[in-house]
Amino acid sequence: MSRKLRFGILGAGRIGPVHAETLAYRAPQAECVVIADINLAAAEAVAARYSIPNVVDSATAVIDDPGIDAIVLCTPTNTHAGIIAHAAQAGKHIFCEKPVSQSLAEIDASIAAVEAAGVKMQVGFNRRFDSNFMRVRKAVESGEIGTPNLFHIVSRDPFPPPLSYLRPSGGIFLDMMIHDFDMARFLMGEVEEVFASGAVLVDPGFAAEDDFDTAIAMLKFASGAIGTIDNSRKSTFGYDQRVEILGSKGKIATENRYSNEVVVSGEKCVYTDLPHNFFMQRYPESFALELQMFVEAVLEDKPVPVTGADSRAPVVMALAARKSVDERRPVRLAEISS
Amino acid sequence: MSRKLRFGILGAGRIGPVHAETLAYRAPQAECVVIADINLAAAEAVAARYSIPNVVDSATAVIDDPGIDAIVLCTPTNTHAGIIAHAAQAGKHIFCEKPVSQSLAEIDASIAAVEAAGVKMQVGFNRRFDSNFMRVRKAVESGEIGTPNLFHIVSRDPFPPPLSYLRPSGGIFLDMMIHDFDMARFLMGEVEEVFASGAVLVDPGFAAEDDFDTAIAMLKFASGAIGTIDNSRKSTFGYDQRVEILGSKGKIATENRYSNEVVVSGEKCVYTDLPHNFFMQRYPESFALELQMFVEAVLEDKPVPVTGADSRAPVVMALAARKSVDERRPVRLAEISS
Amino acid sequence: MSRKLRFGILGAGRIGPVHAETLAYRAPQAECVVIADINLAAAEAVAARYSIPNVVDSATAVIDDPGIDAIVLCTPTNTHAGIIAHAAQAGKHIFCEKPVSQSLAEIDASIAAVEAAGVKMQVGFNRRFDSNFMRVRKAVESGEIGTPNLFHIVSRDPFPPPLSYLRPSGGIFLDMMIHDFDMARFLMGEVEEVFASGAVLVDPGFAAEDDFDTAIAMLKFASGAIGTIDNSRKSTFGYDQRVEILGSKGKIATENRYSNEVVVSGEKCVYTDLPHNFFMQRYPESFALELQMFVEAVLEDKPVPVTGADSRAPVVMALAARKSVDERRPVRLAEISS
Amino acid sequence: MSRKLRFGILGAGRIGPVHAETLAYRAPQAECVVIADINLAAAEAVAARYSIPNVVDSATAVIDDPGIDAIVLCTPTNTHAGIIAHAAQAGKHIFCEKPVSQSLAEIDASIAAVEAAGVKMQVGFNRRFDSNFMRVRKAVESGEIGTPNLFHIVSRDPFPPPLSYLRPSGGIFLDMMIHDFDMARFLMGEVEEVFASGAVLVDPGFAAEDDFDTAIAMLKFASGAIGTIDNSRKSTFGYDQRVEILGSKGKIATENRYSNEVVVSGEKCVYTDLPHNFFMQRYPESFALELQMFVEAVLEDKPVPVTGADSRAPVVMALAARKSVDERRPVRLAEISS
Repeated sequence: MSRKLRFGILGAGRIGPVHAETLAYRAPQAECVVIADINLAAAEAVAARYSIPNVVDSATAVIDDPGIDAIVLCTPTNTHAGIIAHAAQAGKHIFCEKPVSQSLAEIDASIAAVEAAGVKMQVGFNRRFDSNFMRVRKAVESGEIGTPNLFHIVSRDPFPPPLSYLRPSGGIFLDMMIHDFDMARFLMGEVEEVFASGAVLVDPGFAAEDDFDTAIAMLKFASGAIGTIDNSRKSTFGYDQRVEILGSKGKIATENRYSNEVVVSGEKCVYTDLPHNFFMQRYPESFALELQMFVEAVLEDKPVPVTGADSRAPVVMALAARKSVDERRPVRLAEISS
Repeated sequence: MSRKLRFGILGAGRIGPVHAETLAYRAPQAECVVIADINLAAAEAVAARYSIPNVVDSATAVIDDPGIDAIVLCTPTNTHAGIIAHAAQAGKHIFCEKPVSQSLAEIDASIAAVEAAGVKMQVGFNRRFDSNFMRVRKAVESGEIGTPNLFHIVSRDPFPPPLSYLRPSGGIFLDMMIHDFDMARFLMGEVEEVFASGAVLVDPGFAAEDDFDTAIAMLKFASGAIGTIDNSRKSTFGYDQRVEILGSKGKIATENRYSNEVVVSGEKCVYTDLPHNFFMQRYPESFALELQMFVEAVLEDKPVPVTGADSRAPVVMALAARKSVDERRPVRLAEISS
Repeated sequence: MSRKLRFGILGAGRIGPVHAETLAYRAPQAECVVIADINLAAAEAVAARYSIPNVVDSATAVIDDPGIDAIVLCTPTNTHAGIIAHAAQAGKHIFCEKPVSQSLAEIDASIAAVEAAGVKMQVGFNRRFDSNFMRVRKAVESGEIGTPNLFHIVSRDPFPPPLSYLRPSGGIFLDMMIHDFDMARFLMGEVEEVFASGAVLVDPGFAAEDDFDTAIAMLKFASGAIGTIDNSRKSTFGYDQRVEILGSKGKIATENRYSNEVVVSGEKCVYTDLPHNFFMQRYPESFALELQMFVEAVLEDKPVPVTGADSRAPVVMALAARKSVDERRPVRLAEISS
Repeated sequence: MSRKLRFGILGAGRIGPVHAETLAYRAPQAECVVIADINLAAAEAVAARYSIPNVVDSATAVIDDPGIDAIVLCTPTNTHAGIIAHAAQAGKHIFCEKPVSQSLAEIDASIAAVEAAGVKMQVGFNRRFDSNFMRVRKAVESGEIGTPNLFHIVSRDPFPPPLSYLRPSGGIFLDMMIHDFDMARFLMGEVEEVFASGAVLVDPGFAAEDDFDTAIAMLKFASGAIGTIDNSRKSTFGYDQRVEILGSKGKIATENRYSNEVVVSGEKCVYTDLPHNFFMQRYPESFALELQMFVEAVLEDKPVPVTGADSRAPVVMALAARKSVDERRPVRLAEISS
């Protein structure tokens, strides 16, 4: 196929420029022809940097443009469902940042709209495309560690977001642990039950927002395996993102990634520099790869690697986790219907 | 003090010889003058190896011997309480393998007997004396990682015990995770609530014994911190014993210990030999150090480093963990009274 | 400066495409407008991949094009001096792959031509731009390890080149260890004396080419420090590129770089995947950074980070190393004049 | 064999107590019945600590005692040859600290005396018994890394000895690098040629003693393999003792040993405690094992693992290294005859 896939990016905030960079430099079969943001200056800045020829201040203008094949949806979560419905109807393929919605009803409607329109939708669980986690998945699939029995994820941000970010985000389970819920499914298969616990240990302001800055969850998988996840909004030494699985034949574990492989033996200790600070430094490859695979899925009419169903399941898990905290009991995912 | 502390060892099974070796070679202020076992041949073998001059077939003979200052109690758990009562009355200091008992009533009676007699009792939570875990404790106490907020322990045996071992052992929480419950208290302080989950993933025979071969627990500490523990009865690569704490200023984590520091870069992978296989290889130093400190506590009339109360608390946690599994809910330790 | 630096690439072989990729995607202030190769098909393939608008079959056409500001010189080493003379006269800035020449006379003539023309010339010692080696340099410069006293470089290729490559390459000292000689100067300062030894241990065919597949060198630095280098044409586990410096206050050492940070504990060993296989996988960042810095040096009229003098000194060291092998004695660099 | 091997230790200085501890606690088939030192107080202190029943102030008294089977020779090097001659004549087996002598003539005489008397002599190259270096040797012997081609040893002390120690010690090659020369032979086989270089970079006082505090050597092995050694009298971070071999099928390398496996991720770096500080902390196992194997060799009339010839070869290498420095040329071992 010789024609390039023509993209419009909706949203020029934190993650929009990341996808703009991929489309500009790392996806030869794609091009970004327009970027939209109600903050026009932000959109213009991104456009200038990545040579995007058009800038608009509304999503509608992009969606209704017949010259656009696909959109990258980076607007606030509460706008996703509406835009997806509109874009699907307009025949656009959709790459949507996670989560599609905090509401299962909206997710279901979005999935239905996409299916009805016959377009493709992929969801931005980028960590699935990281070389460490892909390697773990490969080990699980190939039987390298036998049957996976025990699972542990560590996922910690270097510093907490502003308190104003918390309520719209849906809280630590929907905003942060959702990545780990996705990773749990990616590596171990479906989950049946969640028990979770939250604490406010980093900043008392989280309590006023009815949120936690520290949380742990215990999972029971359909396979019978069990496991735990821990999250913190603050790890002083940088982004801490690891997974470990114990299988019947061995263990596989990932370490953090560092900007260099230098070890200094000093007078008081043996030390290295800190690991990568946050997701922008840690996951550039995976952000590029997820979009490259979306482009390939559309152009070659193949299944997208992260589906609407994949976007729904972790939200169910997050809702179950929060319910578990509130009711102080393990919650089966089957209990969560809306 | 010039006189050596004179010991009798009760029990010549798996752990008795370990303590015999310490008394023979690594505790200059102590000597073992008698070893007792109903299996006289076993006792004689240990005596021959470590030059213990006397061998008897009953605990009573040791306890009633006025020439003995202290006993090392390595008999089956269900005999501990009776022997402790007798030995305390006879004025012997007692080093007792963990757990003192699976019954809180027996533990309480043992503690009372020891206190009434004015003798010292130390309990064999040897991992507290391991150089890795002591280093972690030091970091917590010194503030090196700030306030501890998140906690994770991995504790996995290389292979499961015989099924016949399971029922008398009290099950995975009382027999295996009890070490981790102790470590949790040692490093993080008192625990208020436990939620646990168990699975049979290694050997279906565990189910018939009403036991689990794989288990996880979630802890809430009095400090507000939270954490998780995972246990498996089978890790093919050897003994897997690690702890990780995230504090407000940093993270501290231990790795396993290896018999050498050699790395081979081969044609297919970069590899090392496996870590130490089991507790005998992994913890010889800590077994020696705990007994050395007991000797010192007795000779210098100092507090023992692991008290009767330290033996009681992890049993409460294990009982709470099992109750949590049975009732599918988090259990506060305050609920456990017997 | 708003105008982009307009490049012509000479040579579409192994390294030309690497620089083409940098100019296409990672150097916003530069563009490649033409690529030349006598193998026109090779040039066309690179042009197609990186959207280079013009393809020619001769260097002359590029050099004489007044629309070109700078050339990237990736042709065989024996053509460098002639092209540099011509290009300098034509006022082109020059990024030249290492080595500029195997002949000191030609290097001197090239340096003179560049100076006479007032153009800039940078030489492609890319490893100076690797994050590991930059970190080591920073430690040396900042005094982090005190005064550097002892030095060791390991540099090993995954597999030997074809035997036909050897004679034109100038042999292991001029072709391979030259990178390490440059690194020695980059990290430790000037060298005064070299003693070297070579062996044929990988492929007997090297002997017929009067070359070695394995070599070591001992260096005395002007600072008084001493050190060693070892090279092999074959390391089965991949590209092995490390440096270690012992200073008066500590040691700094680099490890190899891996494609993931995954550790598997299996039934027989604990292992990781192999490190990066060769320079294309290991040094993509440094190839990009060296060209970015050349672009910046030209556009902002700053000194280039790797000068003509930097290209000369390692050739002197390589000639001294070979002389040392031939005469079985240490050779002072002052002895090498042509 | 039921009788214990009865030892006399000659010399109660730095290394004597190490061997006394092995005989006391870790060699069940041996016992130390006397220790001699002209500093009687020093001998008495060691005797008290390790329950050695007799203390004398002369070697003669020990050697002439018919109740003694074997001696451990820890007196100053210049006394070794005389004592060996005497002890051999008296029929004592001899464990002699390295080096037997700095003089080849004396070594040859000692070897002849031992052979004439039909007693066993083992030399204290303890590092051969370290688990890391034994593992490397095993890899070489088993073919795990193929044919060894390249070799590098790092050997650095934490701090320099007093200047007064230097002249009697014979200098860095005879006193320090001699261990590495032995290790080179142990792992790679015989050496044919040495080129060495020395520098005074740690303490100018070394120059006044005609010695170096920093030295490197380049070795050619009889197998054709080549390699390098570097030594420094000062590594601020502790004892630095590593070896690396590149073979035709892979690489094997050792790391230093640490007192714990704890990693702290702090606010500025990720760090561990320092490696073991010096040989007493680093090599206790190997000191015990070498003497255990000597006891076994005597009792079971087996060959000793480190022979008189093994004590001679590294001295030849050290003399060649010094000659190489003095004459600024590579020196073949065949040139060294006295």
